[in-house]
Amino acid sequence: MRVLVLGGDGFCGWPTSLYLSNRGHDVTILDNLSRRNIDNELEVQSLTPLRPIGERLRAWQEASGREIGFVNLNLATEYDRLVRLLEEIQPAAIVHFAEQRAAPYSMRSVSAKRYTVDNNVRATHNLLVALVSTGCDAALAHLGTMGVYGYGWTGSAPIPEGYLTVKIETPDGEIAREILHPANPGSVYHMTKTLDQLMFAFYAKNDGLRITDLHQGIVWGTQTDQTVKDERLINRFDYDGDYGTVLNRFLMQAAIGHPLTVHGTGGQTRAFIHIRDTVRCIEIAITNPPQTGSQPKVLNQVTESHRLRDLAKMISDMTGAEVANLPNPRREADENELVVRNDQFLALGLNPTTLSQGLMDEVTQVADRYKHRVDPTKIISRSVWRKGMETSEDLMTQIPSAS
Amino acid sequence: MRVLVLGGDGFCGWPTSLYLSNRGHDVTILDNLSRRNIDNELEVQSLTPLRPIGERLRAWQEASGREIGFVNLNLATEYDRLVRLLEEIQPAAIVHFAEQRAAPYSMRSVSAKRYTVDNNVRATHNLLVALVSTGCDAALAHLGTMGVYGYGWTGSAPIPEGYLTVKIETPDGEIAREILHPANPGSVYHMTKTLDQLMFAFYAKNDGLRITDLHQGIVWGTQTDQTVKDERLINRFDYDGDYGTVLNRFLMQAAIGHPLTVHGTGGQTRAFIHIRDTVRCIEIAITNPPQTGSQPKVLNQVTESHRLRDLAKMISDMTGAEVANLPNPRREADENELVVRNDQFLALGLNPTTLSQGLMDEVTQVADRYKHRVDPTKIISRSVWRKGMETSEDLMTQIPSAS
Repeated sequence: MRVLVLGGDGFCGWPTSLYLSNRGHDVTILDNLSRRNIDNELEVQSLTPLRPIGERLRAWQEASGREIGFVNLNLATEYDRLVRLLEEIQPAAIVHFAEQRAAPYSMRSVSAKRYTVDNNVRATHNLLVALVSTGCDAALAHLGTMGVYGYGWTGSAPIPEGYLTVKIETPDGEIAREILHPANPGSVYHMTKTLDQLMFAFYAKNDGLRITDLHQGIVWGTQTDQTVKDERLINRFDYDGDYGTVLNRFLMQAAIGHPLTVHGTGGQTRAFIHIRDTVRCIEIAITNPPQTGSQPKVLNQVTESHRLRDLAKMISDMTGAEVANLPNPRREADENELVVRNDQFLALGLNPTTLSQGLMDEVTQVADRYKHRVDPTKIISRSVWRKGMETSEDLMTQIPSAS
Repeated sequence: MRVLVLGGDGFCGWPTSLYLSNRGHDVTILDNLSRRNIDNELEVQSLTPLRPIGERLRAWQEASGREIGFVNLNLATEYDRLVRLLEEIQPAAIVHFAEQRAAPYSMRSVSAKRYTVDNNVRATHNLLVALVSTGCDAALAHLGTMGVYGYGWTGSAPIPEGYLTVKIETPDGEIAREILHPANPGSVYHMTKTLDQLMFAFYAKNDGLRITDLHQGIVWGTQTDQTVKDERLINRFDYDGDYGTVLNRFLMQAAIGHPLTVHGTGGQTRAFIHIRDTVRCIEIAITNPPQTGSQPKVLNQVTESHRLRDLAKMISDMTGAEVANLPNPRREADENELVVRNDQFLALGLNPTTLSQGLMDEVTQVADRYKHRVDPTKIISRSVWRKGMETSEDLMTQIPSAS
């Protein structure tokens, strides 16, 4: 299958590109390297040493004998180049990771808020218009987020797969309607994914585009069977307060002897997925697209849910790390329950990778190996949801010398 | 009250600016004159002769003794100037008309689709971010559209004022939730207004902005008590297939002896409001804002509903004009019922102006007076919702000589 991976240089995009290539698909990456540029802006770098994209691709060819194409393209602004590329490549499937993906980053400043909306909305809309105007019938799989649903909104009911059946009173009695689950985004970033949903619904209905929206949980883990083949293929590992994801951060903090940073009460329950399952889910999604004329298919790309303080306690028990309860820079509920349906992925053959000592050890080993690269002043989350909210001082100013 | 009118040079924005000025408010218009520029692109002009904005404002000062400020500013791209302006003017209220507002235009081409999304989303989002970053607590009234609801979605239930109470099954029994009415947009233009709604919900919740979203019906009429004071103040009258609104088009077609263009069966029922009520509703909205911390207030800015074929028949009976049933370039239901709640506006003192011979005569007289300005090749609606849909030939190639 000829597959375009938009945002294929990123944390999920890179291992997905390698996985799909390894599975025999003919992969081309489109990426404007914005994630690397944001590292420059934030004066932080991936814990793992990322090679330039060209070197990554050469290493992959050496390791696998397979070629992955690369085009440096800004999806939000270079519409005409996108059209020419679709015409040239004629992809059978497109995976769309090409959006600013961090909630804290999306709240940190005026320019970050504006960039997140301007980039994400225009990237998605340009893609949809380009598919319509070229007549490209590719199966489109987009990375959404569990955060579109909000937390606790449906009470004790599990979060459904995108659509919710509701009852409405009318003069002729109660009627049932299936609706897109009401949007309850918790940040500008999450909000852009709720905007994407409405664009997908419109273009699926008006133009018959075949779209799958994958509402992913918090991704953890670093390596996949492909990224471990050569150090030059290593995946990104974000540990900073804006881009780092919670479980990887805890594991990395334990590895360097930093207290585990629980922002808020830790009563927040979130859904998780391991990066090895992310890449499998993407292939399942593009090989099982909805039919032309269907509403977008929504899949919850998650395998388990955990309360943050339980994760912190577990890792503390495992490693002896302290737990630090810090002010929460987000506006969110202190406590929530979370049960998520993922029946469709299970039916399509996903065999969930859940939290295990072995996989956590793998993350810890990666963190330990590269801990000399950590800047401890980047660990605390300080992007506040409203001006004036309290944040914590640094808990550590230098990394203890290697053990 | 110091009021900023964003898009104050347009069909609704101009009479609103004059009305508010006349009522004693201190009005400043922000507009990038994009609507006039789109006239250039479409090679059509308002049936009524519009004066340059500077001349309009001078004429208003002569007629009323009151000054209206004007700033030529692109809300979607000139964020920093917007911020400086908010700091300088410190408005107590902001009326936001500054979006591309025609459904057919939003579907006519790749560039029009992209422009509609890029302009409307960024304009609204920049405004919201600027309000947050400057701490400006202005009451914001935004022009939405009845088209966000879709038509016929709630069966026989009237369309509520923005929010809908639904029941959801949970393991602990049925629970009731109030949700934003599900979005069912019929064009890229309407879709942008559904995106706006989600942005309003987020910024009201996260930042306490005070927002009113006015879901307006199809506006008809041309003149208000202010625009008639001097010919240089005359309001815009769009008769072309993209920007012309249906009732004004029928009246103008009757005036020039053109068949009344019913695209599709005419079974579509739509909500209407006279321009004189539009301007009143805006003042009611900005003087009755929601409280800080409330969800956006949604008001349906409509006074009556009519089926299009009934309107055509009525005008045909009045004038002897023929009715032409033409292919529908839109993808929409052939027939729908429509009952709309507008209880809040009625409670706040709106005294509806409904269809009357006198007001229709006023439109017809305006059309008759300026009919020499009509280009009859611009009358048929030809912006199709999907490539290849059928459209009609011109029904008339030149205007019959003046009677």
